[in-house]
Amino acid sequence: MVVETQIAKFDSIPLDCGATLAPVEIAYETYGKLNHTGSNAILVGHAFTGDAHAAGVSHEGKPGWWDNMIGPGKAFDTDRYFIICSNVLGGCQGTSGPGSVNPATGKPYAMSFPVITIRDMVRLQKLLVDSLGIKRLLSVAGGSMGGMQALEWAVSYPEMVRSAIPIATTWRHSAQQIAFNEVGRQAIMADPDWSQGDYYDTKPPARGLSVARMVGHITYMSDESMREKFGRRLREKEKFGFDFGVDFEVESYLRYRGNQFVSRFDANSYLYITKAEDYFDLTNGTGRLVDAFSSVDTRFLVISFTSDWLYPSYQSQEIVRVLRRINGDVAYCDLQSNYGHDAFLVDVAEQTELVRGFLDSTARATEAA
Amino acid sequence: MVVETQIAKFDSIPLDCGATLAPVEIAYETYGKLNHTGSNAILVGHAFTGDAHAAGVSHEGKPGWWDNMIGPGKAFDTDRYFIICSNVLGGCQGTSGPGSVNPATGKPYAMSFPVITIRDMVRLQKLLVDSLGIKRLLSVAGGSMGGMQALEWAVSYPEMVRSAIPIATTWRHSAQQIAFNEVGRQAIMADPDWSQGDYYDTKPPARGLSVARMVGHITYMSDESMREKFGRRLREKEKFGFDFGVDFEVESYLRYRGNQFVSRFDANSYLYITKAEDYFDLTNGTGRLVDAFSSVDTRFLVISFTSDWLYPSYQSQEIVRVLRRINGDVAYCDLQSNYGHDAFLVDVAEQTELVRGFLDSTARATEAA
Repeated sequence: MVVETQIAKFDSIPLDCGATLAPVEIAYETYGKLNHTGSNAILVGHAFTGDAHAAGVSHEGKPGWWDNMIGPGKAFDTDRYFIICSNVLGGCQGTSGPGSVNPATGKPYAMSFPVITIRDMVRLQKLLVDSLGIKRLLSVAGGSMGGMQALEWAVSYPEMVRSAIPIATTWRHSAQQIAFNEVGRQAIMADPDWSQGDYYDTKPPARGLSVARMVGHITYMSDESMREKFGRRLREKEKFGFDFGVDFEVESYLRYRGNQFVSRFDANSYLYITKAEDYFDLTNGTGRLVDAFSSVDTRFLVISFTSDWLYPSYQSQEIVRVLRRINGDVAYCDLQSNYGHDAFLVDVAEQTELVRGFLDSTARATEAA
Repeated sequence: MVVETQIAKFDSIPLDCGATLAPVEIAYETYGKLNHTGSNAILVGHAFTGDAHAAGVSHEGKPGWWDNMIGPGKAFDTDRYFIICSNVLGGCQGTSGPGSVNPATGKPYAMSFPVITIRDMVRLQKLLVDSLGIKRLLSVAGGSMGGMQALEWAVSYPEMVRSAIPIATTWRHSAQQIAFNEVGRQAIMADPDWSQGDYYDTKPPARGLSVARMVGHITYMSDESMREKFGRRLREKEKFGFDFGVDFEVESYLRYRGNQFVSRFDANSYLYITKAEDYFDLTNGTGRLVDAFSSVDTRFLVISFTSDWLYPSYQSQEIVRVLRRINGDVAYCDLQSNYGHDAFLVDVAEQTELVRGFLDSTARATEAA
């Protein structure tokens, strides 16, 4: 199915930093049909560098980033559910972000764009969901940063979230997670082409952004998956080059992925979105997850992956433990996979079964109620 | 004890790349006294950014990087053993490297310095050991890249190595290990100040080198140790800054360590030494560790640390498994530690007991023979 990205516009949105962003736009796609009672809507949140194009094929022929999970008969079955995916606030694929034009100046916001949070992203998503006439979401789902959004939805708007599926995620960013993001930010800001973020009329900080992306890619894979995919294989040579060109396949891959990324992602969005992740703490600094979940009446399906060392399983298990302690309705599975953090995007067979069953039982329970 | 770094000079050294480096210098320190039979000498290899100053206090008052392990009554007991530590070939702390003056041009080699390997480093160390009149080393020991040197010694010069103590290391660099090094190299080479390595008359690529070091520091620690040391603590503030200054302690630490590193380390040495690590494969690409160890008659003490994810324990265990298969003399311990890869430098209580006992039994066996 060829899908079209749509844009919704809103007058303004208040932000956690105290500022108000006005006006604000959000890019989104939908798949399937909303039923007459509006009870079959599912919001899918994308990960860091994702976009609204989660499923189907774009006009340019590009498949959605979770097309293996969303579609007729798939985990998020579009014959049955109405799926919404939007680009996050601060992004660079249609939703307001640092690259958007500031109406007050007629120029891109750049670093004058307010620093945003995961809660701000969710607040904008709520405006979208409201505008679509949906009173309650059957589910909010997503992996990585998309999982943070699912958790934040359940805590911020418990009455609107029947169920949540946080995958390969955390309830707060750890020191190590902050550290990796900080390295990416420093790589970008160290590039003279970054020009304090004011590069939209010139050239972007391509080298810095590329290095940031390379670090990211290592953290998305696992030691095992890198060994299987690359090992110590040389790239188009029989012997070491004894120079600083490409020797190993893994070097070639990282350089390629780094360079490729520059053409599709805005460096300032990289700064803003990583900052939102780092600020993410469902407990607002108290560390008391029990309190955060106190008014939550949402069913949860929590999924982690054994080889994911960027968002290790123990972080999901902390969520599950607290939900069980307060007699919450939670299913959990630590799926065996070698793909590291990328598993939620690529290793979807078991994930599909879990999500399908969970959504089915949630839908039945909702209809019965 | 105040120690002095000495310099030994040699006419030339052949290298794995086919070139010959001439002349060549090596910086080294020694601790303790060589006995009259020359049987108590131990060579210690340093890790990536280490230097010859392993123990004691320098004239500037700086303690050695393994001073908690080397000294009177310590693991490497200087009352009993004669310890040698030298700066590696390609380094920037006294041994010939890219920052050294090329006698042919009167200018620093920069990127015209030949690409070197761990075996080349060991070859130069052997010239040093020979020049000190030592026929056989009681032990070669080291952590991380120092452990690679210990392994390479045992394989390259089996008749000269009574025992080896490879710690927190590997017999070949994995795809993930290569990937992290490649990110560091790309960060340096992306910095315009790198100037193709020709920056010795101007300013060094400080921003790129700093980013490279930040990545390194994350890999040296563990998720646990970062949580314990930093958690989500803010740096001199009560609330998020909602800007791109320092929010978290961990950001402050990484920026500080990155900047500090620039003043003590040469960016080109960073490139050369990481390349040597990436090329390291004790089996020369065959993957047949059994063959590599076939003529080895060395006693081994192999140590790894449970939370070391940069040089994970399984890599040490592969070495141990093969040595046991060929009835090699090998002791192994996977030490419980939260400090990640840094453990071999900081968490030395149990390591001390293991090394002390192993050296003692090796010395006794040698004397009895």
